[in-house]
Amino acid sequence: MIKKYLQVCLVSMLLISQVACAQQTPRRQRTPASAQHPQNVILMIPDGFGPASLTMARDYRQQVTGDKSKGLALDEYLVGTARTYSTDSWVTDSAAGATAYACGIKTYNGAIAVDPQGKPCATLFEAAKEKGITTGVVVTTRITHATPAAFSSHVPRRANEDDIAAQQIEQGMKVIFGGGGMYFTPKEAGGKRTDGRNLLTESKAKGYTVVQDLASFRAATKAPLMAVFAPDHMNFEIDRDPNVQPSLAEMTKKALELVKNSPKGFLIMVEGSRIDHAAHANDLGGHVHDILAYDDAVRVALDFAKADGNTLVISVADHETGGLTVGRDGVYNWKPENLMKVKASFEVLIPALQAANADMKEILKDKAGIDDLTDAELALLQKDLTNNSQFSFTVAGIISKRSGIAWTTGGHTAVDVNVVAYGRGSELLRGNHENTNVGNVIAQVMGFDLKALTKKMFGE
Amino acid sequence: MIKKYLQVCLVSMLLISQVACAQQTPRRQRTPASAQHPQNVILMIPDGFGPASLTMARDYRQQVTGDKSKGLALDEYLVGTARTYSTDSWVTDSAAGATAYACGIKTYNGAIAVDPQGKPCATLFEAAKEKGITTGVVVTTRITHATPAAFSSHVPRRANEDDIAAQQIEQGMKVIFGGGGMYFTPKEAGGKRTDGRNLLTESKAKGYTVVQDLASFRAATKAPLMAVFAPDHMNFEIDRDPNVQPSLAEMTKKALELVKNSPKGFLIMVEGSRIDHAAHANDLGGHVHDILAYDDAVRVALDFAKADGNTLVISVADHETGGLTVGRDGVYNWKPENLMKVKASFEVLIPALQAANADMKEILKDKAGIDDLTDAELALLQKDLTNNSQFSFTVAGIISKRSGIAWTTGGHTAVDVNVVAYGRGSELLRGNHENTNVGNVIAQVMGFDLKALTKKMFGE
Repeated sequence: MIKKYLQVCLVSMLLISQVACAQQTPRRQRTPASAQHPQNVILMIPDGFGPASLTMARDYRQQVTGDKSKGLALDEYLVGTARTYSTDSWVTDSAAGATAYACGIKTYNGAIAVDPQGKPCATLFEAAKEKGITTGVVVTTRITHATPAAFSSHVPRRANEDDIAAQQIEQGMKVIFGGGGMYFTPKEAGGKRTDGRNLLTESKAKGYTVVQDLASFRAATKAPLMAVFAPDHMNFEIDRDPNVQPSLAEMTKKALELVKNSPKGFLIMVEGSRIDHAAHANDLGGHVHDILAYDDAVRVALDFAKADGNTLVISVADHETGGLTVGRDGVYNWKPENLMKVKASFEVLIPALQAANADMKEILKDKAGIDDLTDAELALLQKDLTNNSQFSFTVAGIISKRSGIAWTTGGHTAVDVNVVAYGRGSELLRGNHENTNVGNVIAQVMGFDLKALTKKMFGE
Repeated sequence: MIKKYLQVCLVSMLLISQVACAQQTPRRQRTPASAQHPQNVILMIPDGFGPASLTMARDYRQQVTGDKSKGLALDEYLVGTARTYSTDSWVTDSAAGATAYACGIKTYNGAIAVDPQGKPCATLFEAAKEKGITTGVVVTTRITHATPAAFSSHVPRRANEDDIAAQQIEQGMKVIFGGGGMYFTPKEAGGKRTDGRNLLTESKAKGYTVVQDLASFRAATKAPLMAVFAPDHMNFEIDRDPNVQPSLAEMTKKALELVKNSPKGFLIMVEGSRIDHAAHANDLGGHVHDILAYDDAVRVALDFAKADGNTLVISVADHETGGLTVGRDGVYNWKPENLMKVKASFEVLIPALQAANADMKEILKDKAGIDDLTDAELALLQKDLTNNSQFSFTVAGIISKRSGIAWTTGGHTAVDVNVVAYGRGSELLRGNHENTNVGNVIAQVMGFDLKALTKKMFGE
C-alpha cells in the first residue's frame, strides 16, 4: 500500500514539477515550432536606413505630434545591430547586403545571390520552396532591384535586370508587389526587354493574377498575385497619390492577408526600398517620409505577428546611405520644424526648379518652405542649373542646412545597422552580429540547411 | 496512514517542483541581490562616442590585426540604444547627458545635476553615500569636467569648475582619478583657484592619499585615493607616455582593486573622456586611439564582473560628437590602412605644424603618413596658419579625406547612442530607451529612491 502511494506520489511530483516549470519558463524560450506549427517570417528591409536616420525620423514625428513619450514602431523591439561590410569593401552595396540576408553569406558588391566566385548560393526562398513554404516580395522600387532580386534570382551583376525578371517569375512567389514593369515587358510594348518576352503575360499563363492599378489590386482576393504599379520605381511616399498607388503599409497588409493561411507557413520580404534613393540624392524630405511609411508597414507586421502568435518579424537595413548626421556646423540643435515644410521629393522638386529657372525662389518657398534664400544661394543654383547631378546636391545643401541636417556622401557608409526583432526566435538576434547571421537565423528557425541546398542545387 | 503519506507527498511535490524550477530558470532572471549580496555597478561613459565611431574603431582594429572574426569588447554585450535629447535641445551637451545618468532626469544643456529649474537633483552617488556604498570616478579629462561633475556636485553651469572641485572633495568618493589639478590648487601655487584654497592639501587632511605621478599611483594600496596626473586634461592615448601617465584600463583596474572589498558594494563611473575632445577637433587619430583605449578599459570591467559574479557593467555614451561618417564623397570604401599612419593627436600635430610653417609637408608625412599633399592643400594650410581653429579643421579635412572618413560638425549630434550591459540587471536595459532610463535602472538595482532623496536633501 505504502509502496503504491509512493509510486503515485513520485510520478505526480514529476508531472507537477514539469507543468509548473513549463508555466514558469518564459515564452521566448520555447523550442522552435514543430512541423504542425509553421513559423512564419516577415523580413523587413529599410534600404539605406542608418541609425542617425532613425533618430531623425523619430524626432520628426515627435515634433509633428508634440509627444515625446511615443517613439516609432521600430523603437519597440530593437535587439541589436549588424555589421555590413562585404568581401571586397568595408562599405557594402545593396546587392551584397541583400545576399547576406538571402543566402547567409558575404559576397562582393554587385553580387545577386552568388558567392565571391560568382557561383549561385541557395536562397531562403529556394529553401522555402523546397519545403512548400509560401514566399513573396513587397517593395517600392522596381521588383528587379537588388534587394528583392537577391531573394528571387542569381546573377553576377545587379544590372542584369532582364535576367532577374525572367528568373523571378519562375521562383513561385505567391505575392510580387512593387514597381518595375519595364523589365517585365518588351520594347515593343513600351518596356525595356530586348528579348521580346512579355513576362506579365507569361505570369498570367502561370496562374498569377496580374494587376497594374490600385482598384484591381484592392479587388484581388487570391494568390498568386503580381501587382506592378509603375514602369520604373513606385513614387516616394511624399509624392504618392493615394488614389493611384498603395502605401507600403497597405501592400504589406494585403500580402499578409493573401499568405496568412499558407498550410506550411510563409516567408515574405518587405522592403522600404526608396529610403535609400532619397538618401543617395541627400533628399531629406523624401527620406523622412519614406522612413515613416516604412515604420507604418513595420507596425502592420508587428500587429499581425502579435495576433498570430507564430510569426517572427525582423527589420534590418542593408547599409546606411548618405552619411546623414543629426546636427551640423557646431550648432547644438536641429530643426524638424523646418523639415516639416518640405512637401515634395527631389523627383518632383528638381525638374520643377530646372523648368522654372527665374521662378526658383517661388518654388523653393512653396515646395520646401524656404523664404530666406540668399543671393549667393540663388546664384549657385543658377550656375549649376544644367548640371543635373550638381544642381540636385546644391538644392539638397540648401534644404538640409535649414533643417540642421548634414550629409557626407551620395553613396553608402559602413556604420552598423539596427536589428529589430519580435516573436519566437528574436532572441537569436540579440547583440552585435555579422549581417549574415540574420539570414542564418531565419534558416535556423525555418529548419533550412542552405549549405546543403546550395550543394544540391548548384554542386560543390 | 494514507492521509499522512498524502501530506508528505504534496509537500514533497511542492518542494521538488520549486527546486527543479529554480534550476531551470535562467540566471539572468534571478531576483535582484539581497542586502547580504551587494550588487556593484561600473558605469562606463565613452564621451562623444556615436554608433559610426564604433564601426570605424572596430574596422580599424580588424585592419590592424587582420582578423575580422574578432570585434571589440564593446561588441559583446550590446543590449540597446538610448535617446539623448535634453530639455532645451534635440542635441544634448555632456552636462545634461551626464545628469540624465547621474540623477535619472532630463535637464538643460550646461546643467550639472540640477533640474530644469536649477534645483539640485539627488545623484546616484549621494544615494550610494547614504547607504554606505563606495563611489568613485575615473576619467581622463579634468576631474571637474561635466561628466564626472554631474555625479559629484551640483552647479547650474558646467563652467563653475572651482565650485565643482570644492564639492567633489566633500562627496566621500573613495577613488578620484584623472586630470585637472588646476581647479584643486590656488593661483599662488600655479593653479586656477581664486579663493586661495588648496584642495589637494585639504583632501590629504580628510584622509585621502593624494598622488600626482605614476610611480606613487602604482605604489598606493588603499582608498581613499586621489590621483591627479595633469594640471589640465590627461594626454590623448595616441600621445600618452606610458612612463608618465597610466592608461584608462590601468586606472580602471586600480580603482576596482581598491573598491572591490567594499562591504556594501560599490558604484564607480569610468569615463573615456577625450574620445569627445578628439571628435570636437575632427581629430581622427586621437579619436580612434582613445576609443580603443576605452575598449580596453571596458574589457577590464567585464573581466572583473565575470570573475566577481555580482557586478553590473554598463557602457553608454552621453552623445555623439563630430558627426562622423564611415565613408564619404560617393566612394564605397574607407581606408583604415591610411588612418594607421597617423601617429599624433592634434594637441601635438597642430602646434608642430604651426611652428614648422615651411616644413609642414615633412611633419604631415612623419606624423600623419601623408606623402601626397597637393599644392592646393599646402596653400590652404599656409593661408589658415594663424587662424588656430580654422587651421585645425583644415588639417582635419586633409587627414580624414585620406582615410575616407567625414565629419559634419565641431559639436555634437542627436543620434541615439549604443547601450552595452553585462551582469545582473542588464536585461532592464534591452531595447531603445530614454537616456534617463540608465540612471533609473542603476537606482533600481541598487535600491535607491532618487526622488525621495531629492526631496529629503533639497526640499520639494
